[in-house]
Amino acid sequence: MTATLSAESPVSSVRSERIPVAVLGATGSVGQRFVQLLENHPWFRLHELVASERSAEKTYAEAADWRLDTLLPEETAGMTVKKLGAELESVILFSGLDSSVAGEAEEHYANRGAVIVSNSRNHRMDPDVPLLIPEINADHCAAIERQRKRRGGKGYIVTNPNCSTIGLAMAIAPIQQQYGIDCLHVTTMQAISGAGYAGVASYAILDNVIPYIGGGEETKIETEPRKILGRWDGEKFIDASFTISAQVNRVPTIDGHLMTIALSLCNRAELRKSTPIETIIDGIELSIESYIGEPQRLGLPSAPRNPLHYIDAEDRPQPRLDRDRENGMSVSIGRLRPDPILDLKMVALVHNTIRGAAGAAILNAELLDAKGLL
Amino acid sequence: MTATLSAESPVSSVRSERIPVAVLGATGSVGQRFVQLLENHPWFRLHELVASERSAEKTYAEAADWRLDTLLPEETAGMTVKKLGAELESVILFSGLDSSVAGEAEEHYANRGAVIVSNSRNHRMDPDVPLLIPEINADHCAAIERQRKRRGGKGYIVTNPNCSTIGLAMAIAPIQQQYGIDCLHVTTMQAISGAGYAGVASYAILDNVIPYIGGGEETKIETEPRKILGRWDGEKFIDASFTISAQVNRVPTIDGHLMTIALSLCNRAELRKSTPIETIIDGIELSIESYIGEPQRLGLPSAPRNPLHYIDAEDRPQPRLDRDRENGMSVSIGRLRPDPILDLKMVALVHNTIRGAAGAAILNAELLDAKGLL
Amino acid sequence: MTATLSAESPVSSVRSERIPVAVLGATGSVGQRFVQLLENHPWFRLHELVASERSAEKTYAEAADWRLDTLLPEETAGMTVKKLGAELESVILFSGLDSSVAGEAEEHYANRGAVIVSNSRNHRMDPDVPLLIPEINADHCAAIERQRKRRGGKGYIVTNPNCSTIGLAMAIAPIQQQYGIDCLHVTTMQAISGAGYAGVASYAILDNVIPYIGGGEETKIETEPRKILGRWDGEKFIDASFTISAQVNRVPTIDGHLMTIALSLCNRAELRKSTPIETIIDGIELSIESYIGEPQRLGLPSAPRNPLHYIDAEDRPQPRLDRDRENGMSVSIGRLRPDPILDLKMVALVHNTIRGAAGAAILNAELLDAKGLL
Amino acid sequence: MTATLSAESPVSSVRSERIPVAVLGATGSVGQRFVQLLENHPWFRLHELVASERSAEKTYAEAADWRLDTLLPEETAGMTVKKLGAELESVILFSGLDSSVAGEAEEHYANRGAVIVSNSRNHRMDPDVPLLIPEINADHCAAIERQRKRRGGKGYIVTNPNCSTIGLAMAIAPIQQQYGIDCLHVTTMQAISGAGYAGVASYAILDNVIPYIGGGEETKIETEPRKILGRWDGEKFIDASFTISAQVNRVPTIDGHLMTIALSLCNRAELRKSTPIETIIDGIELSIESYIGEPQRLGLPSAPRNPLHYIDAEDRPQPRLDRDRENGMSVSIGRLRPDPILDLKMVALVHNTIRGAAGAAILNAELLDAKGLL
Repeated sequence: MTATLSAESPVSSVRSERIPVAVLGATGSVGQRFVQLLENHPWFRLHELVASERSAEKTYAEAADWRLDTLLPEETAGMTVKKLGAELESVILFSGLDSSVAGEAEEHYANRGAVIVSNSRNHRMDPDVPLLIPEINADHCAAIERQRKRRGGKGYIVTNPNCSTIGLAMAIAPIQQQYGIDCLHVTTMQAISGAGYAGVASYAILDNVIPYIGGGEETKIETEPRKILGRWDGEKFIDASFTISAQVNRVPTIDGHLMTIALSLCNRAELRKSTPIETIIDGIELSIESYIGEPQRLGLPSAPRNPLHYIDAEDRPQPRLDRDRENGMSVSIGRLRPDPILDLKMVALVHNTIRGAAGAAILNAELLDAKGLL
Repeated sequence: MTATLSAESPVSSVRSERIPVAVLGATGSVGQRFVQLLENHPWFRLHELVASERSAEKTYAEAADWRLDTLLPEETAGMTVKKLGAELESVILFSGLDSSVAGEAEEHYANRGAVIVSNSRNHRMDPDVPLLIPEINADHCAAIERQRKRRGGKGYIVTNPNCSTIGLAMAIAPIQQQYGIDCLHVTTMQAISGAGYAGVASYAILDNVIPYIGGGEETKIETEPRKILGRWDGEKFIDASFTISAQVNRVPTIDGHLMTIALSLCNRAELRKSTPIETIIDGIELSIESYIGEPQRLGLPSAPRNPLHYIDAEDRPQPRLDRDRENGMSVSIGRLRPDPILDLKMVALVHNTIRGAAGAAILNAELLDAKGLL
Repeated sequence: MTATLSAESPVSSVRSERIPVAVLGATGSVGQRFVQLLENHPWFRLHELVASERSAEKTYAEAADWRLDTLLPEETAGMTVKKLGAELESVILFSGLDSSVAGEAEEHYANRGAVIVSNSRNHRMDPDVPLLIPEINADHCAAIERQRKRRGGKGYIVTNPNCSTIGLAMAIAPIQQQYGIDCLHVTTMQAISGAGYAGVASYAILDNVIPYIGGGEETKIETEPRKILGRWDGEKFIDASFTISAQVNRVPTIDGHLMTIALSLCNRAELRKSTPIETIIDGIELSIESYIGEPQRLGLPSAPRNPLHYIDAEDRPQPRLDRDRENGMSVSIGRLRPDPILDLKMVALVHNTIRGAAGAAILNAELLDAKGLL
Repeated sequence: MTATLSAESPVSSVRSERIPVAVLGATGSVGQRFVQLLENHPWFRLHELVASERSAEKTYAEAADWRLDTLLPEETAGMTVKKLGAELESVILFSGLDSSVAGEAEEHYANRGAVIVSNSRNHRMDPDVPLLIPEINADHCAAIERQRKRRGGKGYIVTNPNCSTIGLAMAIAPIQQQYGIDCLHVTTMQAISGAGYAGVASYAILDNVIPYIGGGEETKIETEPRKILGRWDGEKFIDASFTISAQVNRVPTIDGHLMTIALSLCNRAELRKSTPIETIIDGIELSIESYIGEPQRLGLPSAPRNPLHYIDAEDRPQPRLDRDRENGMSVSIGRLRPDPILDLKMVALVHNTIRGAAGAAILNAELLDAKGLL
């Protein structure tokens, strides 16, 4: 946290010296996004690249099969990749590790004093690990103190949610905060990039939809939002009480997870007596458009101006047209309308590899920095 | 109807003379499917092709931009297209007309004594027009008598449902018949062919999903199944009482509408007390696999052996792999499992231009023939 | 056996007992096509399935991740997979093995007396191994005698060409036979199925074209047609003398390799003096349409009626519309027109996994059987 | 031309007052790109939007179905669209008009004193209309004087080439300038956006390639480069003398035309005697990487730093990965290697709607401004 930061003034975007950071799992698809988004970051300086034994000691250009549509930053191209487990010098370790190794590796570094900002699923539901979406639950950082105590040092882990969860949780946050949600159905149509570069064979997905995603995707979507929209009571996380039912699909889009949502509000009988559904809908649209949180108040460098965009058109949001709004850091919402069974239905979209993965983690790290937790 | 047909014996598949039929809207995408499926039909002989003024007097090969992946039948290629409104000689008129002209044109021919078997939406909800899925509601043909009376002749209209409705109604029919359905949510992922050849621009759908389909698609899906699964009381149709909420999407697949479904059963509180959900699910899987109806009992030429296929795999059905089962005439179902909010969730798939359009209409015509209604 | 077949080798299409055959590499994409195409084959009976250690001793249903759009034949599903290298009982071994193991394994079985009909590239250019396209060079089977001698037994290997080569060689065969070809440029646009199921990641190819295919694809296309269109002089193969330049691309189509071809004829100066280019083109179109070879003369079960289809339309052939003509066994040609630099240009299409792979091998085996070479 | 511009110093990028410009055909796909690229342009200010009668008098937001993945600029959204033919106040008229109306409309405005910078094909080959690629033939602006004389005023038309032509001409320019080209074969794989938003139906192109593009695409590619790489002799354009043979294809990519090229050099016999082909290739790679022209020398705002990128990788350039280099204004080249028939073969890529259309026109206008021709 810099000296210029105070409760009243936004975070300075000028740094005399940037914080050295590392990327764990740097050659994978999430790792490459980290590398891309950290280029020219005003607060962080990419200092170390870490990957599996196979990549270690190679230059990053040799080790990574760069697949993004911007050029591999030249400076990074020449950096030598370190082996996972090696001693590291960075203050923040961004983890895009595969879940098969992330659990142990993140634990290892956190116990040695590093701040782990992880996109992996392994520690998301740990009882003292914040599952952060800074616009929603920046106050969950309070759990860090307890976690540090457990580890007996200054190291700790924070995580960001599953890519679809982020879209869903952000889309419903203003509704949950205003009315409370009782239950919701969500059907996702997820982009192929969510599975990593080689995760979905073209023969499997061209001219096709696969109504299934492995790794417990539906369970993540059904459980993570309850932690995110719940609260830290000083000792433990208390889940929000709504129920979610998720049905996931892989569709032939490159980036951008689209989802249909239907939900019922708390106290719906009373509520509907007092308020016509159209009035509720108008109010929610306004709440969406005006929604801001800590990242906006603190002026974090990666924060979107508006984390939620309501698009007033009958056929939006659409992945290709809307995923890149605010550099991929905002969630787009549309088609909010009455549901004949529950109360409301709507459509939401999140850029799964930016807001839903690497960008989310970087925003988390910025929050930690701004809150003086590094 | 042939002499060999009786209540006891199946319909003969040998005909001394086939019934002459016409296709209205023969150059469009549904019309082309009609032409394709009627080639070598054992009961029907394609006798007349009808289209708009623009195509009239041309040969079919000139008028139609043939887009199917089988060759245009040679005999048909040389037939001269007649103008919509012209006097026709055929006994059955299959209508693939655009809804902008179907309403009036079908009325015109029905009032002049023709049997209209229509895929268009215009007359589906008319009070004496059957909305047929022969496996489910063959007995709705009873309304034909009343309709004929109204028209004062032997002509009438029968219709098949919207492409998504057919998949949905068939998938839930065994559940509705066994337990009764209280309400259901459905999210569709619909193929581009559902919009006709030029209906979806490639620039609109490549690397994209569009969470909207025009023409009242959601309303059709929310209302048509209630008529189909309802009953004819001798005077009018009585809708089934369940509520449907539909959210539709266009995805970049060529053929095959996939949908996720979540539903609650009638009397769920009592039911769940008496029967574990796993037992209910096992029973429904069996009902799906053994489901048959009039087309199977009558041995109609286009009837699938099994109208419903339950696929016991975690990632099926999939459009490209399963849409062509039983020549595209069966509906595939998978992933039947408990829903944490309602009772059950599952995935269903229908070939939208075969079972969901032209094939459905041809099966309807076969039913009419077998029932002596021509 | 029909009366119209030639006196020397009348092929019966009715068999009292079908020949037992095995598929090597049965779980891969070519292997699955073999299994699909061999179901109900009139001459061959699928008797053994062979794959790597990982699949051995499992049932085929367990071992193979079946990806074709027809159902896995039930009988085959229950067969136990044998390990590559195991002793086999079949007369013909169809090989869809990966080139990393095909070389040695095919040699092994051929030296033990088996007839190997291979789709793999390893032995294609061996000096006594026929590289067969039965319509073009059925007489290359004469090399088998020499190969048997070398191996000291009745076993031998025959191969079919690379998938693109088959399309190219068949498309130019009538031109080569009528005029002789001096040189040709070919640019291919190849479907993803050519790389096997997991060969092309969807992230690599959606909304993209890759101007490269590994495994020496361009070299194969530049060399194999010269052997195919060359001749066996009793001792060795003499290559045809034309030069080919190939540029290959992977495009996001599922099946069907499309290619643009430009070529110059032998003795073009003289030829052009005597014959207008339009006359040459008309003649070649006729040659294409009437082209037949040994498979047609012998009535082989998998032989297309017309191995070459000339499509007289300005925008054809197209992969999705034309790849399945004659069950995928014919090559489609279109847009034959003058080339301002060489003499002619045109477009050709081959179904890469049927005519270009498994179907080609099965036709080869039928030829061997009809010629009494088993 | 601004006062700060001189032969020695680059163009100033600061303007006290920006030049008012109009977009003709503003609602179409090229028109929308113009609107997008002109937002915040340092020299030009979007002042008028012109479209057909159907759009006239509506706001741009109402009239245009905005399809780009950036947001419609707010200021522009509210502008009222003028009718084609109306009197205009702008100094430059960018034309993205359909060729069915462009010919006459552009003539109309040019004869009334406006500077037309057109992307349409109608006047490209006119004898005194420059067909500009500023890096190659900025000196063709000399024809403007003659054209103005003909029109009897200060108005005139300049054009940019067809989208594929731009990629081809830029890719071969350094070779033509260094060695001279004798002839070349090009096969294009063109993105769907080249046909406008509704130009290619998804049903036509998904899982497909169409080996044809209407509107004389092949002829344009065969003729336009000869004008571009030719010279203005003070009276008329003298074409470059090489011959081109083009074969075009539409592939399912969104943006980016990829092409394979094979070419022979002038005096190849002599050349090859004196210089090994590898040396020639190395030299050309260097020429490509160091290639610059007037836009770079003048520091035009839309000029890419390097108009040509040589990518030293066996599988590049690729549309999705490389089309956006330098904001879509550079052409990427790869796989330069010997051709066994001609001399060289290679692959080139151009962003068809930026460098190949709207971006090209804007660069042309910047050139005119910098040269004092407004």
